[in-house]
Amino acid sequence: MILVFTGNGKGKTTAALGQAIRALGQGKKVLIIQFIKGPWKSGEDIFARKLRTTDYKHKLQIIKTGKGFVKILGDKLPLKDHQKAAREGLKIAEQKIKSKKYDLIILDEINNTIDLKLVSAKDVLKILKPIRVNPRSNQRKSATSPDVILTGRNAPKSFIKIADLVTEMKEIKHPFQKNKKSARAGIDF
Amino acid sequence: MILVFTGNGKGKTTAALGQAIRALGQGKKVLIIQFIKGPWKSGEDIFARKLRTTDYKHKLQIIKTGKGFVKILGDKLPLKDHQKAAREGLKIAEQKIKSKKYDLIILDEINNTIDLKLVSAKDVLKILKPIRVNPRSNQRKSATSPDVILTGRNAPKSFIKIADLVTEMKEIKHPFQKNKKSARAGIDF
Repeated sequence: MILVFTGNGKGKTTAALGQAIRALGQGKKVLIIQFIKGPWKSGEDIFARKLRTTDYKHKLQIIKTGKGFVKILGDKLPLKDHQKAAREGLKIAEQKIKSKKYDLIILDEINNTIDLKLVSAKDVLKILKPIRVNPRSNQRKSATSPDVILTGRNAPKSFIKIADLVTEMKEIKHPFQKNKKSARAGIDF
Repeated sequence: MILVFTGNGKGKTTAALGQAIRALGQGKKVLIIQFIKGPWKSGEDIFARKLRTTDYKHKLQIIKTGKGFVKILGDKLPLKDHQKAAREGLKIAEQKIKSKKYDLIILDEINNTIDLKLVSAKDVLKILKPIRVNPRSNQRKSATSPDVILTGRNAPKSFIKIADLVTEMKEIKHPFQKNKKSARAGIDF
């Protein structure tokens, strides 16, 4: 199954993270590949590290790719370098999908990498091919292929089209709108 | 901070669960109170039980309240009994909010309990009073009060009004639409 969490509201990455926890609870193996994340340690990173001392030791893996934020928050890296990093991230994703070692693979912020023109939607669709439903038979190409979640704003239409499930996280109200506070540990990262 | 995750799409409870993990990672203490859940063990229940053998032993607590699904999936319980169970759940929530022992409290599916007329929005607003921003001073009444997440479809307008952050999870595409599959372990529960 291919799931897309998109939209301008809070809850895309956290919903993917919640799916990861649910899957772990059901005995499944989960990989999170993060594209375009800042350099700081997020709550989920610290949590995942702690899990290494438990039964879940080999069940949850987080891989960070990319070179941090693109064109915002003081980023001055040439776009070329961001593109190279995103391509490398995609290469890892491709290998991991093919490996058939995971039940759930989350490509976090992958939608943004396309919006920012770091990789093309076509490149991503290519690596998703092994897990897409065959539109003629309505059957998975392989029963052992993982579920994949694609998160991030502005998901391309081609992702919506091939996805089994799409939710738009729509911002109705956000504290940043009111400039009341900035990002908070445990809430925003 | 009061967060509301509402809408008809997938990702409300999982986003709250993701927030819980993020908060746990940042060393915070989390309580999830589930209203109106089915009797089966969800992935998050199993996961939380496993956490009991770790550093997170006393950091994550899940309390199930309510009498299962209301008016669907074969439920024949009188509405009165559901209402009583929901009121009891709310009582627990009130005590836990007042206890100041938690950094994050999730009232899962609380919005639905109102939509189903099990409790009133007013009853919920009352227990949230200690943590609402004072509209005059724009200050919290107490710095030690927890963040609260309210999940579920059809959040009442009064919740949107008092919330600091609201996301609508909007269904764009869902496999149930196509009758292709039913609920799957690790994805839907």
